[in-house]
Parts: sequence; C-alpha cells; structure tokens
Amino acid sequence: MIIQVFKIGGGIINNKSLLKTSLNIFNKIKNKKVLIHGGGKYLNFFSKKLGIEQKLINGRRITDMKTLDIAKMIYAGLINKNLVAFLQSLNCNALGLSGVDGNLIKSKIRYNKKINYGYVGDLYEKSINNHLFKIFFKENIVPVICSLTHDNHGNILNTNADTIARYISISLYKEYKEKIHLHYAFEKHGVLSNINDDKSYLLKINENIFNHYINNKLINNGMIPKLNNAFKALKSGVSNVTIGRPYGLIDQKKVTTVCL
Amino acid sequence: MIIQVFKIGGGIINNKSLLKTSLNIFNKIKNKKVLIHGGGKYLNFFSKKLGIEQKLINGRRITDMKTLDIAKMIYAGLINKNLVAFLQSLNCNALGLSGVDGNLIKSKIRYNKKINYGYVGDLYEKSINNHLFKIFFKENIVPVICSLTHDNHGNILNTNADTIARYISISLYKEYKEKIHLHYAFEKHGVLSNINDDKSYLLKINENIFNHYINNKLINNGMIPKLNNAFKALKSGVSNVTIGRPYGLIDQKKVTTVCL
Repeated sequence: MIIQVFKIGGGIINNKSLLKTSLNIFNKIKNKKVLIHGGGKYLNFFSKKLGIEQKLINGRRITDMKTLDIAKMIYAGLINKNLVAFLQSLNCNALGLSGVDGNLIKSKIRYNKKINYGYVGDLYEKSINNHLFKIFFKENIVPVICSLTHDNHGNILNTNADTIARYISISLYKEYKEKIHLHYAFEKHGVLSNINDDKSYLLKINENIFNHYINNKLINNGMIPKLNNAFKALKSGVSNVTIGRPYGLIDQKKVTTVCL
Repeated sequence: MIIQVFKIGGGIINNKSLLKTSLNIFNKIKNKKVLIHGGGKYLNFFSKKLGIEQKLINGRRITDMKTLDIAKMIYAGLINKNLVAFLQSLNCNALGLSGVDGNLIKSKIRYNKKINYGYVGDLYEKSINNHLFKIFFKENIVPVICSLTHDNHGNILNTNADTIARYISISLYKEYKEKIHLHYAFEKHGVLSNINDDKSYLLKINENIFNHYINNKLINNGMIPKLNNAFKALKSGVSNVTIGRPYGLIDQKKVTTVCL
C-alpha cells in the first residue's frame, strides 16, 4: 500500500488552470490519499480589502486575532470548500477539515522570548489524530486539510501547511508502516539551482547539496523550510518526498526528488 | 434512542454569552446529536466591509457569486470553526461540515421564472447522505453543519439552515426509526403571540392557531417558514419539534412546542 500526501501551495491555488490540473491528477491516484493546503496569497488580498494591516517581523507573518479570523474564513471556508466541491464534481469523495475538526491536529501556541508571533501553533510528536484518517480511509473518503490547528482550549492556531504535511506523513507512516509518498506541489518545476531560471530545477537534492546552496545563497528563502521539512520526513520513515509541479504525482522524473 | 437535532440561529451566534450557554447545554446532552447553524448577520457585516452590496428582492437575499464567496468564508470558515473549537474545548468531539463535505447534502439550484435567486440550493427527498451520519454517530463524533449545500457539479449553494435542519431530522428518522427531537433555538423564548412582547410566548402552537395568527398578521414574518418547516418535520415522522431559547433542549416547558 502507498499513501499519497499531497500539499498544494498558494501559487497553485491562485492559478485556476494549474489548480484544476492538480486536482484532476490527484483524483486519478488510486492510493489512499490526503490533500493539504494553505492559501497565503488570498489572506493578504482579503486582509487588504478589509483594511487589516499585515504585520511581518523578519519576513514572518504575525497572526493577530483579526488575521486569524481571516485565516479561518479563507483557509477553512473559501479555499477548502472550493477544493472539496471541485473534487466532489470529479466523483472524489472529498471531505474538508481543519485541524480542530474531530480533533485532527493539536498544536501548542508558539512561545518565543523575542517575538510574539500571535496565534501560531507549533506541532509536536502526538499532534496528529491517526484514528480519524483510519475512519476516512476505510470509507474511501479523501481528507482535504487546511493549515489551521487547535490547542484544545478553544483556540484555533495558524500553522505552516508544509509542516502539517510533514507531520501527517510521519504519523501515517508510524500508524501503517507503509510507503508514504509526500509531494510538495508548487508552481515551479522543482528546486531551482538558479532562482532566476525556471528550467534550472534539480532532479535530486540531498543535504550536502542543500547546505552548499544555503552557504552560497543560491536558494530561495521560501524553499529552505520546505526542504527542512522534506529531510525530516525522510529521516522519520517517509519513503519518498518530491517537490515541484503537480505532475510530480504521476511522474517523479519531472520534479525534484529529495534524498538524504 | 433519541437523536437531537439542534439548530442555532443568527441571533444566538451574534450573542457571545447566549452562544456559550447554548453550546454548554448542547454538550451536556447524552443523546446522539447534530448541530446546524447559519450566520446571516455576519454575512451582512462582512459584505458591507468588503463593499459588496446585498441584493434583496421582496426581503429575500439574492446570492450572487461574491455573496456566495462570503457565505463560504463566514459559514464554513469563521463561524463553523469557532463553534467546533469551543465544543472541542468542552471535550465534545465536534467536526465541522458543509453540505459539500463527504457529499453530505445535495441540492438543486433554485429555479424561479420571475426571480433569479442566484446560488441558492433547494433540498429534495434524497438530499441527505445518512451514511456519513452513521459513521460519525458510531465514532461519537458530533457533526456541526453550516448552511451550504452542493449540486455535485462543483457548485456550492446557499441553503436555508432551518430547512436543512428539517431535512436532516426527517432523513435521520427514516434511517433510524427512532425518536428525533428537533429544536430551533433563537434569542426569544418561543413563538410570540404579541411580537412586541417577549414574554408572550406560546407553550404550544398547532396549525389551526398558526393559520389564525397568519390571517390576523400577528406573527413575525421570519417565523412563518420556520413553523412551516416544523409542521412538515412532524408530518414526516419527527417526534418532537420545539422553538425557543437553547434551554428548550433540557426543559421543553420553557419554549414553544409545535404540534399538529
């Protein structure tokens, strides 16, 4: 058995044609599967429309209460339900969830001495409720999960979708001891060796090459946490991690494969 | 066995203290249970904030695409997740759903020769997917359902929450042949005999009294479709329908009981 964990990034969600392609490919996969998404760009758009200023410290978003409310609206509402409706129209029995639903993903509010990140949740070893996945897999229901978690005390927390995808992949591996394939889909072909050249994507990346790219500042800042998640997933038993266009779900040669 | 279907109205959702009370009472019910909600007043608030004009024809909202997007954000996102998070904090294993999730509620886009209501869905006999309720009841998961449905062709549709509560109640009765209790909770004590006197609520209302009130224009317009839903539910096997404050869940003498 293979379980496919498929994370789609904001660049895909914002591109209708690429999004449709992604969901059509995802729908064709016969394995048990999970879709994970964020939706950061819509968050900025609606925050601006509502006159809510986005606070960033060192490039990282601070999730204050108003921003959290918009995250609930955009992630769990607009984007999640649109994804589910499209998959349902393809006869894929998708069911949308946030981490609070059925206690799917617990987290702890981020504590940092210097910076108050606001309503941001960090995951921990027992964050994921595997039982819910078991129920859905048994029923051929496909979970579509947005990047919100909860602390079990009534607080919903904003959590990085790449990190959620990693934790879910590891948790499913521990539960099933089966092959877990994790694909981080975004709008580029893969990890680029030259951030200005879309064609310069790597077929493989390992930690040595990654460190070389970091030391020589050759890698896009946004790619660093994604690759760190990828390495951690592989080290915890996930059998395959790829990064690139959604086509990577069916042809891993067209995207970047992450190796240890 | 009793299954409790509990619908909370916008006036409760907008009142933090009454909402908390409602959810605390709901949490204490030992029966299998379902929570259904809309959230109309937040829709108006955010539409205004986003500069989207609400179109009404004869007092009924027209759900154009922009309004539908806000409904997805508010119903399935902000309100649904806040309700679920609060219930989870009470150790109630709530799971939020719209009608599109797991194909829970199918509907047909409303066709009307004179008025184009937009993205509004009407329910029909086989709209409700009982199988999903069975799964959740078996697992002691409490479904929290917002008032969005889908047409199975990728369209999410806005649907009246009172009507959803009726259809779910009837469908659960047909599935389980058990006692179904349906409580329409709102901010008043019950159906008022004098719309200007909150204390004038009726302990019982039947169709004769209802018709008398309508003919003499003694009844609030908003109450008419709610009572029509209530009568239809009773005629289709639902054993008990009450209307009034959330306390009605535990003490039916303090609210209006609907009789045939």
